[in-house]
Amino acid sequence: MNEYMKVANDLAEKNNLTNLGGPFGAVVVKNGKIVGKGSNCVVGSNDPTAHAEIMAIRNACKELNTFDLSGCELYTSCYPCPMCLSAIIWSNIKKVYYGNTKEDAAEIGFRDDMIYKYIERLSRNKEEKNIIELIPIDREETIKAFEEFKNKESKANY
Amino acid sequence: MNEYMKVANDLAEKNNLTNLGGPFGAVVVKNGKIVGKGSNCVVGSNDPTAHAEIMAIRNACKELNTFDLSGCELYTSCYPCPMCLSAIIWSNIKKVYYGNTKEDAAEIGFRDDMIYKYIERLSRNKEEKNIIELIPIDREETIKAFEEFKNKESKANY
Repeated sequence: MNEYMKVANDLAEKNNLTNLGGPFGAVVVKNGKIVGKGSNCVVGSNDPTAHAEIMAIRNACKELNTFDLSGCELYTSCYPCPMCLSAIIWSNIKKVYYGNTKEDAAEIGFRDDMIYKYIERLSRNKEEKNIIELIPIDREETIKAFEEFKNKESKANY
Repeated sequence: MNEYMKVANDLAEKNNLTNLGGPFGAVVVKNGKIVGKGSNCVVGSNDPTAHAEIMAIRNACKELNTFDLSGCELYTSCYPCPMCLSAIIWSNIKKVYYGNTKEDAAEIGFRDDMIYKYIERLSRNKEEKNIIELIPIDREETIKAFEEFKNKESKANY
């Protein structure tokens, strides 16, 4: 077994001994060294965003003192859900090794695959109000902050 | 202007006076009361997941002492990126009011729309290795944690 995947998988296994969250673990690796670990703690920390990959990314960023993980790789015990996949893109990680599939996650009761399918249908303008109602309001006001940002001299880019 | 969107928009505007992150703000509302606020602080907190909606969800969960925001609504100054949209689904929020569009976000340099398009192509098995390489390994080992979870008596569900 790959040595980094073993660490991710051990985190997933360890979670089964607790009620902190689902059986998911992940590590961020830079130049062969683990710089961040994470396990799912949605239930334990009352945080629906506390998936293994998100926690590993947050911890790696803390460790490296940056929001940019370019050059890092991620090992996760399960294929990332759309939230985590997007977080991986935002963090500039470009290589992800995964163990279980999103279909495996569906099999044990998690909604990863459902959310992928929802986003895919949404991209074809098939909005499904039973999942989320997305309602546009007040753009004539909110667009002003974007215009100000556009004209701002020193900008925080990510 | 809607009173909750005004609070979200004020947070976005306020961010333009700092270098904490992009011009995005969000609030979670329950029974007419704001229970969580968030503004983008990716740069300020070195956390690529610290988008306005994620921060508002985390803060609402802390306030309400739960990972389940069923019955809450979210107001966000900009259409949620796929990370935030998925976080909204995970948190069980079913109604989202937004101001600016994802095309507006692209216009000022953010990758929200690109990530939506990437996930849509990924769902058609059009993997693009220049964005992320997704490599399956060691499933024969990682699947064991899922089997254990399946057989577990008291499970942490979310």
